[in-house]
Amino acid sequence: MRRKEFDMAGDREEADAFLAEMTHGFLGTIGPDGWPGITPLNYVYHANAIYFHGSRIGEKMASIAADPRVTFNVAKEFAIIPSYFTDPVMACPASAYFKSVLIRGRAHVVEHLEEKAAALESFMRKLQPEGGYKPIAADDREYIPRLKGVSVVRIDIEAMTAKFKFGQNMKEDMRTSVMQQLHDRDRPLDAETAALMRQYCPHAAAANPRTDA
Amino acid sequence: MRRKEFDMAGDREEADAFLAEMTHGFLGTIGPDGWPGITPLNYVYHANAIYFHGSRIGEKMASIAADPRVTFNVAKEFAIIPSYFTDPVMACPASAYFKSVLIRGRAHVVEHLEEKAAALESFMRKLQPEGGYKPIAADDREYIPRLKGVSVVRIDIEAMTAKFKFGQNMKEDMRTSVMQQLHDRDRPLDAETAALMRQYCPHAAAANPRTDA
Repeated sequence: MRRKEFDMAGDREEADAFLAEMTHGFLGTIGPDGWPGITPLNYVYHANAIYFHGSRIGEKMASIAADPRVTFNVAKEFAIIPSYFTDPVMACPASAYFKSVLIRGRAHVVEHLEEKAAALESFMRKLQPEGGYKPIAADDREYIPRLKGVSVVRIDIEAMTAKFKFGQNMKEDMRTSVMQQLHDRDRPLDAETAALMRQYCPHAAAANPRTDA
Repeated sequence: MRRKEFDMAGDREEADAFLAEMTHGFLGTIGPDGWPGITPLNYVYHANAIYFHGSRIGEKMASIAADPRVTFNVAKEFAIIPSYFTDPVMACPASAYFKSVLIRGRAHVVEHLEEKAAALESFMRKLQPEGGYKPIAADDREYIPRLKGVSVVRIDIEAMTAKFKFGQNMKEDMRTSVMQQLHDRDRPLDAETAALMRQYCPHAAAANPRTDA
């Protein structure tokens, strides 16, 4: 990434928390015809890997079989920052604030039922934390045929980068003004965006590390 | 796509409306090292193409220069459907409903200032419909240096597919039950998800095309 002020690489905890909080991401593959492919899917970040499941057949499985190199992106758009928050005339400063975690890794089709069951159980605990189902186990007779029938893919992470863009490059008086205007506008995510601007502000981080979010 | 009941390809209007409504998508590229890349970005669907802008340098520009074949995905997750909505025991029916539009195309770096200005003005009208800026024009002396300094990329669309997953494969009594449980749960997007289940239901579509959304 070019702009170092948005780089969260030094803060692995923040990236991990974001991966744990989000429910869906985007899998980047290279298709058998050499074209880049993207598949949106639900995932779980489990045992230091990304796991997802799906049908045994289909484009993404064919792509992974042909080339296991994949990229996995989890991103969330926060507030859109209109140009007039910082410039009364020019459109150029219009922006959007976001969190994005980008993973490079290799995809492996999981064959062991125990690993499949553990990954899917972790997936369920994340997506359905309220429970309401029989826990998935590799020695459960009712689950065994289902576990055999579903594909589970593990992405072994080779690199992870995080870009959180919340006006870190702004001067202090500009940041304060944008935060105030977000509070005044009060659309969904505006207040949360203003809090993250404060949290990720380089000065605030130095003065008072992560207690003011 | 394998499951034809989720395929919205016959309904280009729905895909176009979704592209017009969403503000960000995911660009899939092939990196100079052959690895698939993903970049989340804001876009506008303008003059039958996808346009985005950014810096002249950086990874995605290098990727496009090396290989103009790209994929662009716009997706939105709606309700997560817990397994117990349809099965009191097994975790397997747990699902998530979503809209996803997938575009394959070729990326071109736009050089003409008129096309750049028109695309960026369309982008601003979408992201900042309330105005509050001087319209972007290729003959505006204040904008000319900015237009020259920014990269604008056009994706010429070669193929577009849409997958909207809202329980279209369910039997009628099951669909009605899930819709009722969504209304009872009443999380954000639950009521909207139930309305879309009705709208995209194959029977409802035949009986009463798109008036009950």
